[in-house]
Amino acid sequence: MRLVNGVPADSITLLDRGYQFGDGVFCTLRCESGGLRFWSRQYARLVHDCTALGIAAPDEATLLADIATLEPNDAVIKIIVTRGDSERGYAAPEHCAPNRMVQAAPLPQRPPMDGVRVRWCETRASWQPRLAGIKHLNRLENVLARAEWHDPAIFEGLLLDRDGHVVEGVMSNLLALSGRVLFTPRLDSGGVAGVMREVMMEAAPQMGMAVRETLLTPAALMAADRLWLCNSVIGLVPVRELAGQHWGAHALDIGVAAKLAQLEKDETTWL
Amino acid sequence: MRLVNGVPADSITLLDRGYQFGDGVFCTLRCESGGLRFWSRQYARLVHDCTALGIAAPDEATLLADIATLEPNDAVIKIIVTRGDSERGYAAPEHCAPNRMVQAAPLPQRPPMDGVRVRWCETRASWQPRLAGIKHLNRLENVLARAEWHDPAIFEGLLLDRDGHVVEGVMSNLLALSGRVLFTPRLDSGGVAGVMREVMMEAAPQMGMAVRETLLTPAALMAADRLWLCNSVIGLVPVRELAGQHWGAHALDIGVAAKLAQLEKDETTWL
Repeated sequence: MRLVNGVPADSITLLDRGYQFGDGVFCTLRCESGGLRFWSRQYARLVHDCTALGIAAPDEATLLADIATLEPNDAVIKIIVTRGDSERGYAAPEHCAPNRMVQAAPLPQRPPMDGVRVRWCETRASWQPRLAGIKHLNRLENVLARAEWHDPAIFEGLLLDRDGHVVEGVMSNLLALSGRVLFTPRLDSGGVAGVMREVMMEAAPQMGMAVRETLLTPAALMAADRLWLCNSVIGLVPVRELAGQHWGAHALDIGVAAKLAQLEKDETTWL
Repeated sequence: MRLVNGVPADSITLLDRGYQFGDGVFCTLRCESGGLRFWSRQYARLVHDCTALGIAAPDEATLLADIATLEPNDAVIKIIVTRGDSERGYAAPEHCAPNRMVQAAPLPQRPPMDGVRVRWCETRASWQPRLAGIKHLNRLENVLARAEWHDPAIFEGLLLDRDGHVVEGVMSNLLALSGRVLFTPRLDSGGVAGVMREVMMEAAPQMGMAVRETLLTPAALMAADRLWLCNSVIGLVPVRELAGQHWGAHALDIGVAAKLAQLEKDETTWL
């Protein structure tokens, strides 16, 4: 079920600038037993992303009311906010009223706890500092990267940037553990700064890990003791294999999973 | 008036991947007295762009029938082709039927023949070779660049890439004449390779100009004898002022305009 601007709908006007130009942002989050995981962070990120693009973010109460209308129990909630409607042309009208779309979709199973198989993508991540970190609707490079493989045994593909540094997965952020240091790619020229990545960067020191946002080479990644993928739907998932290299279970896996499960519970907003 | 998949419509399904991800392409062309300017080139470019993204391009006859249904006389025709519908997720269904949208909008006046004022944009053009040249729907950087100015006396803004080379205007391609050589930026890592740019590159030798696709610095641009902007709606327009530098009329202006007017007539498809 879907709402557009609070009203049940299955379509959006052709004037919508999301449709015309990808002129908007989105977020995706888990709802479990009617509880919205990390809602406050999701909303804060949505506001941040809207602000970065000059879009007026919807009120938190408005979005929560929309979600409540959908009566989700276990669901993936997706929110799209676009700049609003306009005729042809990149210039937006002075008073452009944003359009919001809220949908509830079936909650997929979590990936296996013992990890997933991952590949390198040929498609490179864009260089574009103005959009870096933002979960915007210009996602063609993710679509092209995801189209590179059809093998259902491959869970995710990793993207490098122009300079050959690792940026992210097609639909996830990347964390690499070396000793007691958790590395994650800097996202100042591309990529999406996901909420789960933020959660992990905050939680890591409490688990005895130092955190470094850095330029990460494929070689450094392959040499890591542990790789994890994360996003708000899958949570945190170990990488079991990347390009022929295998990682077995790591001593930290269980502790990290338990810590995240605790945080999910602590940071749930109930409808 | 607008058609979606041949049927009058003012909205598109929320499942459309153009809305969800900007997963599609578009083109814009002039219709004058029922004649479609440079239609064959426009259609060829649409097919090229669809193919580059793995989208099945609509038949030419289908699109022409759509346009004819709109009964345009003088109009800007805009066509959007998206990959089709899907649920959440970057992976497209195996059999994804493209959606096409065709609209006729009022034809704007041509810009003044004596030229327009242009500025530099702070927003840089993305580096993304997989999308370079393609007129795709991921246009957030154009939106952000266009939002940099509100002065209606400024007609266009120019974008540099990461390395400081000139790429294009927000909504136009750029041509720079030095002596008898016509320079235009290479578009292998970003930008849109417009149909009018192609027309000019073909026509220039017939007017005694050599053509060079090249890396173009702002300094080279400022030192040019003549700058022109071009796209399929405005045609070819001289730049009168850029960042305080002025260009007067050039001996070639009239000849080039006449040549283009002739080509427009020669390459018109009548409905």
